Amino acid sequence: MKKITVDLGERSYPILIGDSLLDDANVFGEHIPGLQVLIVTNETIAPLYLDTVTRSLGDREVVVHVLPDGESFKTLETASGIFDTLLDVPCDRGVTIVALGGGVVGDMAGFAAGCYQRGVTYVQIPTTLLSQVDSSVGGKTAVNHPAGKNMIGVFHQPASVITDVGTLKTLPAREFAAGMAEVIKYGAINDPEFFQWLEDEASAIDNRDPAALVHIIEQSCRNKADVVSRDEREQNVRAILNFGHTFGHAIENAVGYGEWLHGEAVGCGMVMAASMSARLGWISDTDSARVQALVQRFGLPVVPPASMASEDFMRLMARDKKVARGAIRLVLLREFGLAELVSDYDVDALAETLAQFTASA
Amino acid sequence: MKKITVDLGERSYPILIGDSLLDDANVFGEHIPGLQVLIVTNETIAPLYLDTVTRSLGDREVVVHVLPDGESFKTLETASGIFDTLLDVPCDRGVTIVALGGGVVGDMAGFAAGCYQRGVTYVQIPTTLLSQVDSSVGGKTAVNHPAGKNMIGVFHQPASVITDVGTLKTLPAREFAAGMAEVIKYGAINDPEFFQWLEDEASAIDNRDPAALVHIIEQSCRNKADVVSRDEREQNVRAILNFGHTFGHAIENAVGYGEWLHGEAVGCGMVMAASMSARLGWISDTDSARVQALVQRFGLPVVPPASMASEDFMRLMARDKKVARGAIRLVLLREFGLAELVSDYDVDALAETLAQFTASA
Repeated sequence: MKKITVDLGERSYPILIGDSLLDDANVFGEHIPGLQVLIVTNETIAPLYLDTVTRSLGDREVVVHVLPDGESFKTLETASGIFDTLLDVPCDRGVTIVALGGGVVGDMAGFAAGCYQRGVTYVQIPTTLLSQVDSSVGGKTAVNHPAGKNMIGVFHQPASVITDVGTLKTLPAREFAAGMAEVIKYGAINDPEFFQWLEDEASAIDNRDPAALVHIIEQSCRNKADVVSRDEREQNVRAILNFGHTFGHAIENAVGYGEWLHGEAVGCGMVMAASMSARLGWISDTDSARVQALVQRFGLPVVPPASMASEDFMRLMARDKKVARGAIRLVLLREFGLAELVSDYDVDALAETLAQFTASA
Repeated sequence: MKKITVDLGERSYPILIGDSLLDDANVFGEHIPGLQVLIVTNETIAPLYLDTVTRSLGDREVVVHVLPDGESFKTLETASGIFDTLLDVPCDRGVTIVALGGGVVGDMAGFAAGCYQRGVTYVQIPTTLLSQVDSSVGGKTAVNHPAGKNMIGVFHQPASVITDVGTLKTLPAREFAAGMAEVIKYGAINDPEFFQWLEDEASAIDNRDPAALVHIIEQSCRNKADVVSRDEREQNVRAILNFGHTFGHAIENAVGYGEWLHGEAVGCGMVMAASMSARLGWISDTDSARVQALVQRFGLPVVPPASMASEDFMRLMARDKKVARGAIRLVLLREFGLAELVSDYDVDALAETLAQFTASA
């Protein structure tokens, strides 16, 4: 078992990463505080892991709230149902809310924990690769609003994160690939050695070898914690975590949210951002090609939908929240393994990159 | 104009207290950041002050969200309407949410500010005595749930509080009296000199003399900030702010919320808590009588409803959140001007106090 400490002063917490941790009553005993526990999970995850988790919680009072599965349920109304359960039991201020599931479950359980009686203890047990490498660090919680994703939420740090790579055995291939997009991202923006390791060990990862999975989750969390610790509030440093996301959001918007998985859009977006970085002369063509090859290696798309034209990207990217005073701010690679949020680039490079990647090219 | 700084390190903020501050574009210019402002107010307050406040905001983009008036609307559903407005405009992360109104408006606007895009700037313009002396310090925001008051909320500190005592001219007498209960409380629990001042200047306060009002709000905020700074999280020190509240909540529960105003129940509860403190020999009978006289002087009730028996108090107080492991914890006066959360008192003193104050006596 690997242990990473996310350093936030008084609010520091451990991320524990290993195989078969869900069966480990000692880990649960040590890292899940409280005598009363509310497990928030969903209808897909509950049949797979709920019994195991409940057993490992021992003789504590365990209450379960099962959400419907899917991003479309990540609403204030569904969160309200968690509050109903908390008050129906009732759970007191000493309750620990445990999120058992992927990003949607974590976002909603974390939001409920952040708001119930102005904040109760929260523990994450992420069961998808994306949530294991992304949601474990940063303290973000949220629900969606019809007018925008993650518009309603709070920052609420967990007391601990327990990551069992065994849960990835049941993860569908397409979701595994989507998680890999974020893993590749950490290498590209902050850790060229890790990027190289991913190239070398791609087969072990593909085979979901437990040791390889522990390593990629550990390195991803370390890199994210490193970036976030340099910038706990969402300022310019943290923005580099959005590498590939501005192009990616345009794709998600164009095809309609849910058609492409977020990770798929980010994968393609990273290829485009790396290509533009090479066009600006900031990284070599070889390194740009490495990004494309690794994204492709894990089964992610490397070209946007054929229906999208340059103008679609320009229009949709201009709407993105990373726009400041008219200039489209982009996260690009100043050098390989070093990303930066920039708006002082040569605009022709953006136009040429879009032309290259769209149907009109 | 008086200025108090609530010292919270990076999140420190000023409370400005004066007459006619709502007309003062300079105060608004200096203390309300942002180019885009959402004013949250209610249907009672809007006709009185909305034009003035909007004018003082100068040429900023001002959006208004008017809530229905009343505690029954302090719900997640009504808060959701504020999010709808924010996203309909749309307001970006730089928006400042201004609460113009009493405690309910402040709680809801503050909750919305705490959750919109994981937290935006918040400014309070409290227009009731209760909100001016109570909600200005502590950073508490919340909405109610059918199963309990203030069950869903966050801590979110304001960027500033602008208190115009001129708004108290239009405050109904009963609400003014309810606010005075909290003012008296600060004297009793933390500031015997201020208690004496209230006795001496009762007429000026009753006449709503602006200088007297500025003074009571200033001293109340200073005392609350003093208590809260000793205990930013809700631990034992902060609990003394609940002086009179355990008896008071029992009354509110017995008669049904809304029949007695919260301040009325707290006024009577303080008289009972002071009486019990004297019975324990912790304060003199004279000081207990002073509490009763001052509560009565401002038109607040000093005996509970005739329908309540000792058993009603015991049953309802046992349900209160200040119960730990079976013992009813109470905030009592260890000496006059010094409150403490205790559970080691002689239980006969509680029984005798309840007998004295209820119909069976």
